[in-house]
Amino acid sequence: MMQGCFMKTIGIGLAGFGTVGAGVYENLERHRELIAERSGYSFAMRRIVVRDLQKQRDVSAPASLFSSRWQDLLEDPEIKIIVELIGGTTEAFDLTMAAIRSGRIVVTGNKALLAERGAEIFALASECKVPVFFEAAVAGGIPIIQSLRDAFVGNRIESVHGILNGTSNYILTRMQEAGLDYPEALAEAVTLGYAEADPTLDINGWDAGHKAIILAALAYGFWVDPTTIRVEGIDRVSAADIHFAKSLGYCIKLLGSIREKNGKVEVGVAPTLIPLGNVLASVNGVFNAVAVRGDLVGDSLFYGRGAGRGPTSTSVIGDLVEAAHVLDAPRGTFGFAPHALYGSSRSSSEIVGSYYLRLSVDDKPGVLALIAGVLGEAGIGISSVVQPESIAGVETPLVLMIHEAAYGAMCAALAKITALGCVKGEPVLFNVETFS
Amino acid sequence: MMQGCFMKTIGIGLAGFGTVGAGVYENLERHRELIAERSGYSFAMRRIVVRDLQKQRDVSAPASLFSSRWQDLLEDPEIKIIVELIGGTTEAFDLTMAAIRSGRIVVTGNKALLAERGAEIFALASECKVPVFFEAAVAGGIPIIQSLRDAFVGNRIESVHGILNGTSNYILTRMQEAGLDYPEALAEAVTLGYAEADPTLDINGWDAGHKAIILAALAYGFWVDPTTIRVEGIDRVSAADIHFAKSLGYCIKLLGSIREKNGKVEVGVAPTLIPLGNVLASVNGVFNAVAVRGDLVGDSLFYGRGAGRGPTSTSVIGDLVEAAHVLDAPRGTFGFAPHALYGSSRSSSEIVGSYYLRLSVDDKPGVLALIAGVLGEAGIGISSVVQPESIAGVETPLVLMIHEAAYGAMCAALAKITALGCVKGEPVLFNVETFS
Repeated sequence: MMQGCFMKTIGIGLAGFGTVGAGVYENLERHRELIAERSGYSFAMRRIVVRDLQKQRDVSAPASLFSSRWQDLLEDPEIKIIVELIGGTTEAFDLTMAAIRSGRIVVTGNKALLAERGAEIFALASECKVPVFFEAAVAGGIPIIQSLRDAFVGNRIESVHGILNGTSNYILTRMQEAGLDYPEALAEAVTLGYAEADPTLDINGWDAGHKAIILAALAYGFWVDPTTIRVEGIDRVSAADIHFAKSLGYCIKLLGSIREKNGKVEVGVAPTLIPLGNVLASVNGVFNAVAVRGDLVGDSLFYGRGAGRGPTSTSVIGDLVEAAHVLDAPRGTFGFAPHALYGSSRSSSEIVGSYYLRLSVDDKPGVLALIAGVLGEAGIGISSVVQPESIAGVETPLVLMIHEAAYGAMCAALAKITALGCVKGEPVLFNVETFS
Repeated sequence: MMQGCFMKTIGIGLAGFGTVGAGVYENLERHRELIAERSGYSFAMRRIVVRDLQKQRDVSAPASLFSSRWQDLLEDPEIKIIVELIGGTTEAFDLTMAAIRSGRIVVTGNKALLAERGAEIFALASECKVPVFFEAAVAGGIPIIQSLRDAFVGNRIESVHGILNGTSNYILTRMQEAGLDYPEALAEAVTLGYAEADPTLDINGWDAGHKAIILAALAYGFWVDPTTIRVEGIDRVSAADIHFAKSLGYCIKLLGSIREKNGKVEVGVAPTLIPLGNVLASVNGVFNAVAVRGDLVGDSLFYGRGAGRGPTSTSVIGDLVEAAHVLDAPRGTFGFAPHALYGSSRSSSEIVGSYYLRLSVDDKPGVLALIAGVLGEAGIGISSVVQPESIAGVETPLVLMIHEAAYGAMCAALAKITALGCVKGEPVLFNVETFS
């Protein structure tokens, strides 16, 4: 029973029918009445573009809807909104730009596309006065895009920290809780379907890296060049380091860090030691979370699944309703408002952070003096040194907690330390974040 | 430097210049450039209405802005948006209705007003096609209104659970962490400014009750009658019960519970035992949190300060920007979309829950048999019984955990139990929520 005062049907087109695309189709059908009652809009799917028309799919849609040419979406004048869920940065870019030029509002979940070509896309969106919405691109189901863009519009954003990749977080959680080593935890994630058969972008940090760039754009009004940021994945996190971190009162999370400091914006993704008492330390399994600190709002946190069919189609459907409102009543903003309040970004080598440095050293006197000497020469202070018991995989470990050093200086010193005869194997350098 | 493609100044009026009202004024001034760059709008304060023109205030504004007649807001045709922050349900109601009739968009932080008269207000808003925005009314700074309304528009909301009153949560946290008793913790909250000199609405649960009604309206499309819901405050929570709960693996929080079950909506606020491992159990101090479970999005959580000048003016400013967009491009929805997807609400006596029942009993054999007999006759099953050591204030305690009983039946059985000669003093009945 519709009590609202209007009801409108909007033609839409969909590119991509994988987990998320099929979920959007399925959930728009399942919740047609709910969405109509709550929003006043009904969405009519007019065309679904897929790469392979023959592929078996777990969600069925009328065969007549399918096409393998994305241009078909543009050729149907009744399609007013195009949902781009094909991923990648080539065809998706062409489709997005062509859609904007043709006046179609774009709803996308493509984090790589926005992180790499967001500046071009939104310049065109602004020129054509056609918005692009992208809630599904970061932490599906968690309304962090809308919140940063709209709810916190009156805040100077001091920092955004996020656990942005569920696969990595699942693996780290299992390593932390069950004591698994990295390959075991990864294998388990693949078996359970939490990781792709090829989990490269999850594991190497770039999935989170793309998301961090998008969050930085919303917080600070410009697109940081992805080639300039430090992005490290979790593949060098070992059970040994998780153990050492725990004994120091920390857990290890893959953390996206975005902040403004002295007029420059800092963006990066790296395995990071977080105090066990911090709320982000309790974000476990496949869950994602984003902590935002604003000058007025203080500390806030958004938590949810972040990925998967239901959460991500939640975000796409929310964007579809927003797009429908804009179709009826065009706004003067287009999904992203560029501005120059914060100047530029700081190069990763100049970003000052705190670090966990774990070495394997020769078990002889004088080793610590040598290492401390290199750090001292570089002007890098050590806040504490621990020499834990050897454990599987790490002989004669030496853990140094380092407070406030530029990453470039830290790496240079680390190269010298590694070259000392007394250091064995690869040193491990992770960030430490205390959120002070 | 403005890079956007438009910039507009919007005249606004403000009713109320207390903590929040003064914060809105101050922060609109402080962040004028930021807000303009991020939104394209600049807000010109044209009139501030206060009860007492002589009162000393910690934020200064030009004397010429002040008035003691709210009608002045309506008489200035340049005022397009009215921010209502005077509280109460009489004058605020008159102002809100008059503002809507005059075509002014209303931004309000008044939870009592909406909870008690939301149906009338939104009926008029819909009739006049003038929206009312109210992000500041629930958990200031936490964008839960926008998220339930827009981001989760495609979800069937299964439940919403919230820690919605910072004062109560501060008191309970101090009782839990420092072992304070209720009067001590309350006194501390008053001293620190976390509780009003008259904290009645915080302590008796109605501040949270009003917020729960608003969240229920967004989740389920209709306004539950406040006189029909069960609202209990924290004044009966003792150090002893916090201690007993802890030993059973729970903490006690003042929890607002909103859920749909078998086609009916259940709303209530009561002291509730929450498993210590649940994420809501770690929401401490003055912080608020709202956990939303949707059929697509799964479990999500929003966390933040929830009150105070900065957080609440964050919400008001977000609403002002949304209102400005609507002024430029009117939508077909007016801040709240009534619908009848979920039917009606369930009366509190019929709501089935789990309970913590703590009695003081005579230290004699046969007492438990008598109590269990009364519960058994009422068809109420006991899931566990613990007889902890006596502690200060509670002699010979007996704790019964009760699984799945209608609240009305539970209260009736409790009256019979209290009338047994063997029970001393007031029994304590709290909810238990395991979020299963």
